[in-house]
Parts: sequence; C-alpha cells; structure tokens
Amino acid sequence: MPKYVYLFKEGNASMRNLLGGKGANLAEMTNIGLPVPQGFTVTTEACTRYYSDGKTIAPEIEKEIYAALAETEKIAGKKFGDLENPFLVSVRSGSRASMPGMMDTILNLGLNDVAVKAMAKLTNNERFAYDSYRRFIQMFSDVVMEIGKTKFHEALEDVKRENSAKQDTDLTADNLKEVVRRYKAIYKAAMGEEFPQDPKAQLMESIKAVFRSWDNPRAVYYRRMNDIPGDWGTAVNVQSMVFGNMGDDCGTGVAFTRNPSTGEKKLYGEYLMNAQGEDVVAGIRTPFHIESMKDNLPHVYDQFVQIAEKLEKHYRDMQDMEFTIERGQLFMLQTRNGKRTAAAAVKIAVDLVDEKMLSEEEAVLKVEPKQLETLLHPNFDVNALKTATAIATGLPASPGAGAGGLYFTAADAAKAGKAGKNVILVREETTPEDIEGMDYASAILTARGGMTSHAAVVARGMGRAAVVGCGVLHINDADKTLSVNGKVYHEGDPVSVDGGTGNVYEGLLPTVETTVSGDFGRLMIWADAARRLKVRTNADTPRDTVQGVAFGAEGIGLCRTEHMFFEASRVKAMREMILSDNADQRRAALARILPYQQKDFEEMYIALEGRPMTVRYLDPPLHEFLPQKSMLSEIREIAKELGTTPEKIVQKIDELHEMNPMMGHRGCRLAVTYPEIAEMQTRAVLQAAINVRKQTKYDVVPEIMIPLVGSKKELSYVKSIVMKTAEIIFAEQGVTIPFMVGTMIEIPRACVTADEIAEEAEFFSFGTNDLTQMAFGFSRDDAGKFLDSYYSNKILESDPFARLDVDGVGKLVEMAVKLGRQGRPNIKLGICGEHGGDPSTVEFCHAVGLDYVSCSPFRVPIARLAAAHAAIKEKKAKNA
Amino acid sequence: MPKYVYLFKEGNASMRNLLGGKGANLAEMTNIGLPVPQGFTVTTEACTRYYSDGKTIAPEIEKEIYAALAETEKIAGKKFGDLENPFLVSVRSGSRASMPGMMDTILNLGLNDVAVKAMAKLTNNERFAYDSYRRFIQMFSDVVMEIGKTKFHEALEDVKRENSAKQDTDLTADNLKEVVRRYKAIYKAAMGEEFPQDPKAQLMESIKAVFRSWDNPRAVYYRRMNDIPGDWGTAVNVQSMVFGNMGDDCGTGVAFTRNPSTGEKKLYGEYLMNAQGEDVVAGIRTPFHIESMKDNLPHVYDQFVQIAEKLEKHYRDMQDMEFTIERGQLFMLQTRNGKRTAAAAVKIAVDLVDEKMLSEEEAVLKVEPKQLETLLHPNFDVNALKTATAIATGLPASPGAGAGGLYFTAADAAKAGKAGKNVILVREETTPEDIEGMDYASAILTARGGMTSHAAVVARGMGRAAVVGCGVLHINDADKTLSVNGKVYHEGDPVSVDGGTGNVYEGLLPTVETTVSGDFGRLMIWADAARRLKVRTNADTPRDTVQGVAFGAEGIGLCRTEHMFFEASRVKAMREMILSDNADQRRAALARILPYQQKDFEEMYIALEGRPMTVRYLDPPLHEFLPQKSMLSEIREIAKELGTTPEKIVQKIDELHEMNPMMGHRGCRLAVTYPEIAEMQTRAVLQAAINVRKQTKYDVVPEIMIPLVGSKKELSYVKSIVMKTAEIIFAEQGVTIPFMVGTMIEIPRACVTADEIAEEAEFFSFGTNDLTQMAFGFSRDDAGKFLDSYYSNKILESDPFARLDVDGVGKLVEMAVKLGRQGRPNIKLGICGEHGGDPSTVEFCHAVGLDYVSCSPFRVPIARLAAAHAAIKEKKAKNA
Repeated sequence: MPKYVYLFKEGNASMRNLLGGKGANLAEMTNIGLPVPQGFTVTTEACTRYYSDGKTIAPEIEKEIYAALAETEKIAGKKFGDLENPFLVSVRSGSRASMPGMMDTILNLGLNDVAVKAMAKLTNNERFAYDSYRRFIQMFSDVVMEIGKTKFHEALEDVKRENSAKQDTDLTADNLKEVVRRYKAIYKAAMGEEFPQDPKAQLMESIKAVFRSWDNPRAVYYRRMNDIPGDWGTAVNVQSMVFGNMGDDCGTGVAFTRNPSTGEKKLYGEYLMNAQGEDVVAGIRTPFHIESMKDNLPHVYDQFVQIAEKLEKHYRDMQDMEFTIERGQLFMLQTRNGKRTAAAAVKIAVDLVDEKMLSEEEAVLKVEPKQLETLLHPNFDVNALKTATAIATGLPASPGAGAGGLYFTAADAAKAGKAGKNVILVREETTPEDIEGMDYASAILTARGGMTSHAAVVARGMGRAAVVGCGVLHINDADKTLSVNGKVYHEGDPVSVDGGTGNVYEGLLPTVETTVSGDFGRLMIWADAARRLKVRTNADTPRDTVQGVAFGAEGIGLCRTEHMFFEASRVKAMREMILSDNADQRRAALARILPYQQKDFEEMYIALEGRPMTVRYLDPPLHEFLPQKSMLSEIREIAKELGTTPEKIVQKIDELHEMNPMMGHRGCRLAVTYPEIAEMQTRAVLQAAINVRKQTKYDVVPEIMIPLVGSKKELSYVKSIVMKTAEIIFAEQGVTIPFMVGTMIEIPRACVTADEIAEEAEFFSFGTNDLTQMAFGFSRDDAGKFLDSYYSNKILESDPFARLDVDGVGKLVEMAVKLGRQGRPNIKLGICGEHGGDPSTVEFCHAVGLDYVSCSPFRVPIARLAAAHAAIKEKKAKNA
Repeated sequence: MPKYVYLFKEGNASMRNLLGGKGANLAEMTNIGLPVPQGFTVTTEACTRYYSDGKTIAPEIEKEIYAALAETEKIAGKKFGDLENPFLVSVRSGSRASMPGMMDTILNLGLNDVAVKAMAKLTNNERFAYDSYRRFIQMFSDVVMEIGKTKFHEALEDVKRENSAKQDTDLTADNLKEVVRRYKAIYKAAMGEEFPQDPKAQLMESIKAVFRSWDNPRAVYYRRMNDIPGDWGTAVNVQSMVFGNMGDDCGTGVAFTRNPSTGEKKLYGEYLMNAQGEDVVAGIRTPFHIESMKDNLPHVYDQFVQIAEKLEKHYRDMQDMEFTIERGQLFMLQTRNGKRTAAAAVKIAVDLVDEKMLSEEEAVLKVEPKQLETLLHPNFDVNALKTATAIATGLPASPGAGAGGLYFTAADAAKAGKAGKNVILVREETTPEDIEGMDYASAILTARGGMTSHAAVVARGMGRAAVVGCGVLHINDADKTLSVNGKVYHEGDPVSVDGGTGNVYEGLLPTVETTVSGDFGRLMIWADAARRLKVRTNADTPRDTVQGVAFGAEGIGLCRTEHMFFEASRVKAMREMILSDNADQRRAALARILPYQQKDFEEMYIALEGRPMTVRYLDPPLHEFLPQKSMLSEIREIAKELGTTPEKIVQKIDELHEMNPMMGHRGCRLAVTYPEIAEMQTRAVLQAAINVRKQTKYDVVPEIMIPLVGSKKELSYVKSIVMKTAEIIFAEQGVTIPFMVGTMIEIPRACVTADEIAEEAEFFSFGTNDLTQMAFGFSRDDAGKFLDSYYSNKILESDPFARLDVDGVGKLVEMAVKLGRQGRPNIKLGICGEHGGDPSTVEFCHAVGLDYVSCSPFRVPIARLAAAHAAIKEKKAKNA
C-alpha cells in the first residue's frame, strides 16, 4: 500500500510529483535546517484516490492523517482543542505545477469555543483571539461548506454600525464575540447543524475541500491555459499556524531573491506589520518595501537575507518566499522558484551562468519558451511617449504595452476580446474569478494592490502588460465608468497602458517592435547550439520573410501563395480566372497573375539569401475570392470592372457554394480540375528561382508543395503537371535547376497511406490545422460553439488547434513519419501548421524525429528555444 | 522474360488473368477438340507493358506476335496478302472480366488490293470480297485510325443513289469496287497517306488500337460501375476469320445453353443466315430463333447441341456461345459463362445442384450478390395491370418494372436521373456510348434489336428493366417525340415499362414488392449455412423493421432516432426544444417527444421478436429541424404554431448556422451540450424494453449507440448520463434489465485511439459514411463537383462512398478493430454505413473479422449472399 501522508521531515525537494511543489519545498527547507513551522503533506495520490473513491477519503488515509497530526502535535508541543495550549493549523493546496490563487486555503483551523479562550489567555489578547475565530468561521463556511460570504459580511457591518465602528479594527473584543455568535447562527441556519467544534472534523472537511478545489472552474481554466494535466491532482499541506498579527513585533511578507520584473540581483519584496499573509496578497493595505525591514527589525532582516541567499544557492534559481514574524521570530512558510517576466527570466538565466551557478544548457531550460512572447511583443513608440501626457501612474507590475478599449468586468473583457477587440481590463482589484477576462486583455489596470497582488502575479505569468495600485482611478462598476481627476471614461473608450513604466494614457498610442537585448542573444546562441530541430518560418510576403530571418528562421516552411492573390491589384485577374468558361480563358487570366507571383518569389528568394523555401500551391476554395452573394453593391462593382454582368457573378457564386467547403473543392483538387493553375504556379516558382540564381550566388532549390493530398495517385497526377511544365521552362530558358516536389500531410488518409505517397513525395510537411480538423471532425470555424462544454466537462483539457493533440492527431503524425520513411528513407519531414510555434508541439516534433518546424516569424525564437528544451531534456533523460 | 503471346493450343481455361476470358476459353475449346478457328492471344501483361512503355509495343513483343502469326498461318495453310490463299484475321479484345461492347474489334484484317482479288476468286464471289474489303477499310479507319464514320457513310449513300440502289444489298460488285475506291480516298485525305497494304502493319496498328480502347471513356465508366481494376489491362485475340456471309449455306449466331432471362434449361439463341456476327449484335436484321436451325441445317444443329452440352458440362455453368457456319461447317468463335438475370442465376444455380453438377457452396458462388438487387426490385401491381392497356409490346429483354418520364438521349436521361427524376430512356437502339444514361434509367425501351442486342445485354447486367425491338414505336430524336399509333409523346411524359412482359403503358403504374421464389429461398439457406458474418438491417420505423426481418435480417444494426423526429406530429416538439432558452424548457419539450419515441421502440422490439437493436442517439445538427432562412412563409407558420415570433426563429437559424455542419455541432456533441436529450432517449429505449419484456417473452437487451465519438472521455461523459438515467428508471420501475452502451466509429481519431475507447464501449459500429468523409476530407455533399475529374484522370477508380476504400479507410477500420480488441477482447464489432450492403465491402468486413454488417432492408439478402461468398472463397483459398 502506498504511503499517503508525509511529515515535512520525511520528504525532500525531489518528491514534487507526490508532495506538490509547496510540500516538497517545505520538506527541503526543514531538511536544510531553516525555521519552518512543522506539519505534514497529504499526497497528490491521495487526491487521485479521493476522486476515484467517489469523492471520499478512504479510512486508511484518514488513519494516516491522524497519525501525522499526532506526531505534528508532539513536535509543536500543542494539542487540538487544548484548554491551555491549543494547536492551530493552516490547510493549503500544493500541486506539482504552481497554480497561484487557483485553489483553496483555510487558516486558523482548530479554533473552537474552547480553543479561542485558551488563545486569548495565552496571547493575552482577547481581541486577537476572537478576530481569528470569526475569520476562521467565515473562511470555513465559505471555502469548506460553500455557504457564501454575503450574510457574514452583512452581520459584520451590522455589528460595526450598532457599535459605531468605522473600521474592522475599531471593533472591541466584545464586539467580536458578538460577531462570532452571529456567524455561528448563520452557519447553523445554512447547514442545519452547529458549527463543528471538533478540530479533527474541521480538518477532514477542509482537506476534502482542498481536493475538491482542484476541480473548480478557474483551476480547470488555468490548467488548460498552462497545459497542466487534470489527473495530476493536488497535495494538501497541513502546517502549524504562526501568527503575524499578534502585535507590533509580528509581521508577514513575501520576497523574491531577485527582481521578478527586471531580473536585477537584489532582494525584492514587501511586508506588513501585524498582519496575516492574506492581507499582503489581497492588496488591501499597501505594504512596505522589504528593505525598510532593515531599520525596523534589523536582526530578523539579516537572518532573512542569509536564508534567501542560502535558498537561492540551494535551488540554483531565483526564489519566491513567504515568511511570517511571530513575536520577533522568523518563520519560513514557503519557497519556490519565482515566477518572473520573460525579460527577468533571460537576465537571471544569463546571470546565473556568469555566477557559475548554472551551465549554459541549464540556463536555457530556465526560460520558458512560451514566455518569450512577451519579450517579442511591441512596446510603445518612444517618440509618441515623449509627447504623450500620462493621465495616471501606478505600479509597473508587468512589462509590455497595451492599447485598447476600457472594459469593467472580466466577462465584458472576455466578450469583447473574443469579438476581436483590443481590450484593457480595469478593476478595483482582480480576483481569481477574473482569469478569463485577463487572458483576453491586452493590459490590466487596477486601482489597488501591490507588485505581488493577484493582478500583478497573474499578468506577469500570462505575459500581459499590467499597471496596479493606481490609486488615482475612481472606478464605478455599476455605471461602468472610470473617472480620473474629474474626467470620466466609459466602456470602450481608448486608453494605453505601459506596464514597463506604470503610466496610463488617454487614446491609443502607436507601438514599435522590441529590440531584443544582449542577454537574449547570448541565451539564444546557447539554445541554437543545443537543438537538433531546424526552425523555419511561415511567410507569404518579402516583408514577413525579412522579419522571420531576423528572428533566426532557417528558411520558409510555408509560403501560402493564395495570400499573394488577395491583394487588390491581383484579385481582379484571379476573379477573371474564376469566371472563365474554359481552360484557355483561365490561362489568359493566370498569365496576368504570373508576373506578380514570380516577382514576389524573386524578392523572397533574395531575402532568404539561399535558405530554402517551401511554396504551397493554391489551397483555398475559389469562392473565397468572390464576395458574398448578399454583397450586391460589391458584386455590381466587380461586374463593371471585369466587364461582365452581376448575374454571371451571382451564378458563379451559386456554382461555387459548398455545404462543407473545408472538405470541398480546394487544395490539390483545384489543380486536378484546373491543371493550368498548377502550370502557372510552377512557372512562377521556377522562373523566379532561375532569375535569382542568375543574379546572385544563392543556390536556390525550390520546394514545391502540393496541398491536401489524400492518395499517391492524386500527388502523381499533380506532380506530372509540375514536371511537364518544368521541362518546358527548362527548354525555353536553356537551363535546368534542381527542385523538389513534396506534399502537405493534412488528410487522415494520407497518414495511413504515407508509405505510398512518399514514393512520389520528396518531403512531407504536416499541416496539423487541417489534420486536426479531419481527425477530430471538428470544423475550426464552428467548434467554438461546443468546445466550451468540452472544457467544462473535462472532455478536452486544451484547445487541439492551439496545442497538438498528441494522443490522437499525434498518432497519425507518428504513423505518417514511420510509413513515410519506409517509402523513402531520406524523406524530409517538417510541420507547418500553427502548432509549429507551440512549445509542447515542438517537443513532440523533436521526439517523433521531424527535421524542422515552421511557424509565424514572431514565434520563431519561441520554437528555437522549445527545440533546445526538447533536445536538452532528452539528453538529461538519457543520462539519468 | 515473360511470354507475351500464346497460341490457342498453348493455353487453357485457368489462364484467364493472362489471356483474358475470351482467350482462355478459345484455348480451352481448342484443347477439348472443338472446331475453333485457330489463332493466338497477346496477353494482358503485354497491354500493361504497352502503357508502361509509353503506348508502344516493345520490339520483343512484336517479334513474338510475328512468330505466332507465322505459326497460325501454317495451321491455316494460308498467308497474309497471299495472291491465292490470303489469310484474314479478326482482332478482338478480351479482358479478365467480361466487358461486352466496351472495347474495340476489327474484322477481315489482312484484306488489301491483292488479297481482295484472291478472295473473289477463291470464293467465286467478287461481290462478297469487295463488300468485306469496304467494311474492313471503314472499320480500320474508324476504330484504329479514329477517322470517324460520317464521310464513309456519305460515300456509301452517294454510290447507292448514283446506282439507284435502295439497300446495301442492291449494290453490285462493281458498285462496291467504286465504294472501296472512294473509301481509300477518304482515308488518304484524312491520314495523308495511302490505306496500308501491308497486313502486318494493319495487324500491329489494330493490336495497339485494342490496347488503347481499354482506356476509352465508356470502358473506364463500365469498370468503375463493375469494380474492375484499371490496371488489369486487356488481352488481344487474333483469330483466323471464318465467314458467315459467303452464301446461303453460311450463317452466324449466338446462343445460351439455358435461358438467360428465366434460367429455363433449354437452348436459347438466335442466328442469321448469310451474315457476319456484327449483324446479329447490332440488331439491324431480326434474327431467327436457334430452334429453327433444326429444320434449316439439321446436321449443324445436332453438332451445335452436342457442343453446347459438352461445354456446359465442361465448365459446369450456363454457357454463352458465338458460332459461325462457313459453307455448312460449324465453327465456335467464343464461349463464356453467360450473363444472366438474377432470377435466372438463382434458378440455374439451384438446378445445377439438382443435376449434381455443383455443390451447394459452388452454387452459392454462381449468383453475384449485386445482381439480387433486380430480384428484390418491385414489379407492377397486378391489379393495376389488369385494367391497364398496353400502348405497345416489345421483347421482354430484362425483367423488372420501370415507370418515369421519357428521355430521348443518354445525356438527357443522365441529367434527369441526377436531378432525382425517374427516367425511361427510349432509343432507336442503344450503343455503348449510352451506358451512363442507361445506368440512370429505371427502364430502357428500344424500337429495334433482339434479346441479345446491346440494350438487352447491358440492361440485364445492370438489373434495369428493358423492353427492346418494339417496332411500333416511331422515335424522332430531333423533335424528341415518340409516336405510337398516331399518338405523340414528348420528353418527360410519363410511361411505364414492364421488362417481364414486354408491355409499355401510358402513365405511371403503381408497383408492389416482389415475392421471392422457392429457388431463391433454397439458395439463401445454403448461403446462410456458409457465412460467418451476421447480417442486420438499418431500420428507423416498425415498417422497415418488418421488411428487414422478412428479408432475413438478424437484428437492427442502426436505428437512426432522428428520423422519428421529422414526422409532422413530432417535429413541433423538436422545434420547441431547439427554440428553448434553457435546460428546463428543453426538458419540457423533450417530454412531449418521449411517448412517441418510446412507442416506436416498443413496436420495433416486438417486430424484432427478440433480435437485437442498436439505437443511435440523436445525430444531425439541429438546424436540420428548422426551415431555411429564406423560407419566410414556412417560418411564419411555425412561429404561429409554436406561439413565438418569426424573428426568434430567424435568430435561432442564424445561431445554428455553421460553416461546415458536417464537422460541427452534431452527434454526441449534442449530448455533451444538451445532456437532457440523451436523458430522454435513454428513457425511451429502456422504458420500451422494460414494457416489451413485461408484455412478451422476448429477452430484449437494448444496445445504446453514441455517435461521432472521437475520444474516450467524450464517450465516458455521455455514457455517464445514460447510466445515471438508467439508475433512476430502474429505481422508478423497480426492475433492472441488462443493456449495452457502445459507439459508432466514424471519426479518424476514434480509429487511432480505439483501444482507449473500447474500455468504455461494449460494441463498435463502423459508420463508414462519415469515416470516408473525414478520412478523405471529402464532403459527400460537395465532392460531386470534382470527383468526375478524379475518375477521368484515374486518380480514383470507384466512388469511395459506394465502395469502401479498402486501402485508406479500410486501414483505419483495421486499426480500430485491432486496437478495439486490445482494449476489450470480447468487443462486438459491426458496420452500419451504407457500405454495409456493398458486396466488396462485405468481403472486407469478413476478412477483417467483424461480427456483423448492417444495411437497408432491401440489401439484406445481398449482404447475406456476399457474406457467404466471402466465407466460401476464404475456405477455398485455405484449401488451395
């Protein structure tokens, strides 16, 4: 039988999967002799058991919990419910991956009508004891019993009013006794029984509540956003309470060993005197900077600095610590590798190499590929900032620039974001319930809270710009208005938020590309040295090509030629082609497109300086080049331009209408019915390559990619058109150049017949967007309507269009890789779906043995870093 | 090096794949000592070589041909182009599978300016010699050189006019010499060179022409219709000519050893005196019945009867023979297993068992499953026939009843057929070019030709009703009118054609189901004894259920519950459900549907008498239950009926609109978002089963099938709704019954994760329609637009929606079978797509190890027979 409960002294940092991050680190700190209030951890496996046992805790686990409790009481020298020395504990979640604020916490557990009196006597502070008790009742009722806060809030307000108390702190011990009495009455009314006086019962219910909270909607959403599997479960940490709110020699705080925003090597944190941890995190009182503790509590400060250094050296990473000072004595409540901005992550990683704490490869692993997105996001244009006047300034909590319309609730922000709008979410302060709205916001702005408030922590994790604690803002949620120094802003009004400076501006400021710093360049050199996968970019224009190459792309993995046809100057010829009655008319129209397309290819080949480019032939259904049937004025205009009748255009639109265009007349099916399109495109590619070869020294070898192939014969047929056209061109030009013909693998049938297809294809490029559509039978355009139900019912944990579904679609890819190599041992393999820039997909592509990934220019550095992670992790696993 | 050319005496019947059917049988007849004009066969492999060598005949094959030619000349004692005894040959196609009339034939090859004179002298019949020569020039020009018939026809008419000849037979030898002169001039004008005088050159060009004709459009279409692979190729038979047109002691004919229409054991055929074979087939002269030969040529008749008996015994099957009588001497030109109607096939198979010629299993193999379709087609209602008066009567060439609009060209018939109309194709006589139009016709009606004319043969093969040689019809193709005894009918006018009696009626007569004969019943008992696969039916109503059971279904493999919702009385509640704003409203609407659905299930369970039924839960997207947005009056009506506004309905239609509904919100996705639908359906199924169990002795075990599942979690989720609902129902009713929950496998992802899905599914039913759509990425609604290009470019050989794509979709099925058994060793496996009734798919299902197939009631006997074929063939292969 597995062991389900570990005392802190029984664990260590390597037991993260079993004890969760918090539990493993509390054990590790205990082992290295730091002052940690003792306790025990109920494992993640107990959580999994809890769910598989139908949401109950098995008797044998209960027994283990009580045994650990007894041992912990012994260490603390206190007992649950004791008349003289009552034992109080906190109960906190702690999963393998950090999920800050997503799950539940219960403090002061163990208080009851007896213990509260003992506490009062022991601390000589009756007011403190009853304040703790009433907080516990409320927290237990809310978190464990789900009674809701409203009635408790009203009762507190009633007592305050009856006693003319303005602040909570104005209430006397007797007032608080009355609050406790009323709270217990509320509990009884709601639950039909007395507030539980048995601390063991309190404990068991609380552990269950934490287990339950693993599955609350915001935790599910957070996991989906962060690719955390739903079957990991959470551990529960039961720890002796220490009190930061017992008087003026008490306090509590959080600190980072380095600046989490910039990476600067300097202790960075905040604390509050006479307060509990929740006061700091909630941002209700504005805390002091950690350095000021040097003057207030010099001895404690010195001890804390030493501990911080020790922890950083021990973990070889920047630490995020929570501590409490109880009557002048320092207790460490938590340490973990600190969350940080992308910029800080890069600086810290590089610094740790320079400080000889990490190897270069270890440093590469310290920066999450996904995070780089922030680094690569644009900031505000410096010149625009010079002339702009800030309407307010708050704390610069998360760097980056956000400009958009104001929205006052997370729901409104999410709705506007889904509609494609740029959104600034403005809130008094944010709560974990706001997470989806924050995800959709370009920037987050709050009136209250510090650098470690919820808004700040979450925004940094998400890579969203955030300005917090901006006290000059007056937010009226009911009216949905924001007033700043008398000027009123309404929903949708444009503002700009600079997360790097804390400034807020009226209107939309222009942004510029970020220049990546020297540290970033060094890190990427290390990453490039480590990775095996090549990284290409998806680019359809010379401009994108330049951008991709600047970001380190080693070629173009996907040039979508149709994008070249949508430009106003070209779409006319395209429409003439579509409206043609026969192949000759089509050829004439295509001849007019040829020079444009050839010129684009020439410019792209020059920008690539000899790097390879995969050109995909025309893919979308032809109706996309015509207006909708209902757009009558546009149809009339086009008819005039093309010298035809609106009726003819409408007739063609009807002809091209399809029930399921995604599975209709597109991809290579166009080349099968209209070979002249493939002829023209072959001409454009090869003539461009021949010209660039003549003009430059670049050894251009075109890669021609036939899309949407489902069978070998289909590819053979289209390839034969390409080969015939190539022969004609080479004869015309008196020159022969090498080129490749390959295909996109994006049809399930192609995956299972990849051995045959590889006989014709010199390369495969996995088009995982379409492959995901067909493999799931999910239309990307329509799935939004039901995917939310899939997430909420935990049928899907992440969007398969964003993160490759390794278990299903991945299996098809693996099969195609294996069969493809059977059919052609030296076949070149890549991926060019939007998944190409997703780090977890890159890892899969590395594992499955692809040669390259291709993604948007902007995600190239992310893919490079992810490829390095995959290679380094594989090496580590092999050496382990 | 393979041998590419075989003399007839070198081959035998078992070499069909290499020599083609005709060549193998000519060899076999030679071996058993029948009078066969000798010759040789160029193999099907030579045909394949011809295509792979870029449509040329390799020198080594040419050499072999010339060697065989020399040997044949020796046997015949004649020489090509000889001044005294010139050698003439026929050149005919002959593939592995019979493709009557699809490929080319050249007769009288070897004639030239010299040989014609020798022929005249030898036969003492100058007229005959020049008539043969002019026919040969025209045939060679048309078939080999593709010059076209028009100019030749005009020249012939000119000479007839100039000499006041009414019929061809009125032309004298000198007239025919003039025709020959003009024909050669036409040839020279068209080809730029003289008509070839070298018989070897004529021969080589003709062989190439036959090879080429393997790929002509009508042959390609025929192969697609008959599942004949394009890479088989055709053999070419070069055979000494014998002449049925040398005088009155000459003749030619075709005959069957039994009646191909009824199966009656009696020689059945036709012949013409002083004629060539083409005259019989073309139907230009009306031939005599074979029996009349007994009086005209008693000696030949006796010999023929003996040969026919010998051949039937030798081949142990009904034979279709061609013969020629040259100056009183009988020659056999061909024998083959004769094509026959389904009724004849059944009778002959059963008779051959009774005659001890075949075992029961061999007899089963003699009836093609696909053919049964005709047997099961309805005939005209007997009572309606009693009062109906035929407007015309022709030969009853192919049984069955057809009623529909008149169409005068194959193109018009095909067009109307594609538009969903019932079509009667009426033609003077049909030609191979008409094949597509015949395929779309319910019945075929011709004014000329006999029982073995093109129209008759092809119609029987297709299982179409046909009446031929109906001389009272006057067809005007230009006006598209048909006049019968003075009354004129126009395109689209309704007529009824009875292929069993030869009668043609005005208007549309009602039809009735066929009752299947006793022979049929015996054969099916043998088939059922042989097969391993079970056969179920797809049925959505009690009526279909009764029909399916009558046809031998062993249960229902697919009950599409949505069909129960489309009925007028039920669709109202369905629409209310769709227009609901919340789950409670939906539940209320569903509660009104429940009694209907439950009653249907009860009736179906009773009709099934204990056989199993798989009930598929709601599958189509909900928009299918609402009218189109443009149908304003219908929307207004529905709004009134439901007590809501048209605007609300339009809004809902907009809401439900999807870009790709086939991959949208349907299948189990409906149950995920609206669990209350699955709850109601579970109630209907289980309550019905409980009631029927109470009322009858039937041991009803419901099989609940969740459609469109792509992952295990999806199935688990919907299954949990079913299980919870079942618990409630069992508690309510105080009874628990066994039931199964399984899924349809129709999503590619389900195939590759079938091991996981099988952990939740007690059965899989392959939905190969959707699986084909997703595997190919072909929308069934749209693919028609480009599939024709796929056929004509030979990318696809058959419609993957009609015949399962074994290489691709089949691989996915195989994978799912293997993985499914891994996940659950005793899992039940079936198929319920429309492929379930396709014989080649049934064979695949047998091979891959499914437990059952399910198809429409009508196709159940076909599937039973196909399953028997698969099992018997497997056994034969094992014993071989």
